[in-house]
Amino acid sequence: MDNPSAIGLDTCLDYLPYEMTVGIKDVKDAAEAIFEFNKRIIDAVYDIAPAVKVQVAYYEMYGWRGMKAFADTLKYAKKKKMLTIADAKRNDIGSTAAAYSSAYLGQTPIGGKPYTGFESDFVTLNAYLGIDGIKPFLDDCKKFGKGVFILCKTSNPGSGQLQDLQVCHGDVCHGDVVPDTKTIYETMGELVSEWGSELVGKKGYSAVGAVVGATHKAQAETLRKQMPHTFFLVPGYGAQGGKLDDLKVCFDKKGGGAIVNSSRAILCAYKTEKYKGLAFDKAARQAAIDMRAEIRSMNNE
Amino acid sequence: MDNPSAIGLDTCLDYLPYEMTVGIKDVKDAAEAIFEFNKRIIDAVYDIAPAVKVQVAYYEMYGWRGMKAFADTLKYAKKKKMLTIADAKRNDIGSTAAAYSSAYLGQTPIGGKPYTGFESDFVTLNAYLGIDGIKPFLDDCKKFGKGVFILCKTSNPGSGQLQDLQVCHGDVCHGDVVPDTKTIYETMGELVSEWGSELVGKKGYSAVGAVVGATHKAQAETLRKQMPHTFFLVPGYGAQGGKLDDLKVCFDKKGGGAIVNSSRAILCAYKTEKYKGLAFDKAARQAAIDMRAEIRSMNNE
Repeated sequence: MDNPSAIGLDTCLDYLPYEMTVGIKDVKDAAEAIFEFNKRIIDAVYDIAPAVKVQVAYYEMYGWRGMKAFADTLKYAKKKKMLTIADAKRNDIGSTAAAYSSAYLGQTPIGGKPYTGFESDFVTLNAYLGIDGIKPFLDDCKKFGKGVFILCKTSNPGSGQLQDLQVCHGDVCHGDVVPDTKTIYETMGELVSEWGSELVGKKGYSAVGAVVGATHKAQAETLRKQMPHTFFLVPGYGAQGGKLDDLKVCFDKKGGGAIVNSSRAILCAYKTEKYKGLAFDKAARQAAIDMRAEIRSMNNE
Repeated sequence: MDNPSAIGLDTCLDYLPYEMTVGIKDVKDAAEAIFEFNKRIIDAVYDIAPAVKVQVAYYEMYGWRGMKAFADTLKYAKKKKMLTIADAKRNDIGSTAAAYSSAYLGQTPIGGKPYTGFESDFVTLNAYLGIDGIKPFLDDCKKFGKGVFILCKTSNPGSGQLQDLQVCHGDVCHGDVVPDTKTIYETMGELVSEWGSELVGKKGYSAVGAVVGATHKAQAETLRKQMPHTFFLVPGYGAQGGKLDDLKVCFDKKGGGAIVNSSRAILCAYKTEKYKGLAFDKAARQAAIDMRAEIRSMNNE
């Protein structure tokens, strides 16, 4: 990928320039303004970055009208030939996971015709429930040529509270000399590799990817070595504090295998000193160009 | 609680009687039919069961129009004085978790006024990301008198793949004589108890509850002993194979501390031999009455 980055559309009203929020009286106005903002961002970046990551939480906040803006945003990005990642972190038991998969990757039959709820190419998942909750998505990946990213090591400061705990594998924790332990995130990494092993494409990467935060360098490095065929979705770059050096370990030796996401640093670029004076979409474009240069410089080092 | 049970509105088109699906041409028709079905179920059970659990996956399947049916269903259940549980299993990092919490428990400010996306009293959560992703919900629980249920041991057959793994606590897995290990679900149980300790109400239960499947008896028993102040949401009763005897261990000695959910066994009662000949809503009412009798008999044993 020429520019392995995604623009994160975590759009909430606070991110909009003042003039776009004037006259917003109700949720309908708010959802429409958010979609209008997203459209202008997509228009500004679609020839720079290959993908958008749309964080559904920021749309659910505005109820069903927010979900309409979410659906419209994905549709508009697809129209502009971008890849769309629904950042939904969905998870449930088998039959319910199948319903989620129909919403994001597959289709729902209505009156004998297939209906697509949300036009995403990828969806993020949480695999706390094990393979039962993942399998329906894998089936839709195969059937519709889609992909998933499963949470392994997340970018938040407290991600270690559960994810960094040591898990005993085999009997080795029960009195043996050398304990065979792995962290929960490494254990999850193993499951993700295993689940994705049948979905490895021509370029050597599986349709089953992993979410690995850019804010925990050592852990990202461990996972990169452990999962050679897994594509990483790397959030936390920019506003969350992930640095270029931390980012580098998420890519493999060929400079591939990862896509980096930046949300606030792009959407709110116009509020920063660096891009001061530019309209929000112009600032976003320039920030996306600068991010591309940064990622390229890193991979060319 | 006189009848600690919830009616699970996991409504998809297949569950509707034939005559309600005739003439459905598009997603708008489908979403309207689903809401109409839910309304008639709520009318039939609101004086029998205190709560509905609405599984959001089945609504996302129908895109934003499905989400409107989801919102309308919660609103209608509230109008009928039922408690509403949004079964959403949401999870994300801090700022995004705050957006989800605004959607389900809190409010979103729009034009200086507070807006409520979805009228739920409780939401289910997945805590793979640790406390960062839970904290915003706890704040809204305090502020708005709401509650959450966090996944501990789920009802699906493969839940053990991750949840039953043994975690090392302290240094004891590294060469000591007696290893101090706990499963991931017990470890999660400890976190849930800890997070909920400041939100224990007058009746001795915390606003921070746990999801504990009725299909894994031994594990439910362990958690019940471990978490005396935690309210359990127990799915998997009925169609998923959870039995009365398995259910009993989810309640405490006072016969409290749990709410049992049944979805398909209520919504699709009219399709079974037992309730044959009854209209779908009449059958659902009778099935809800029978379930109440069963749960009462268990607690009176």
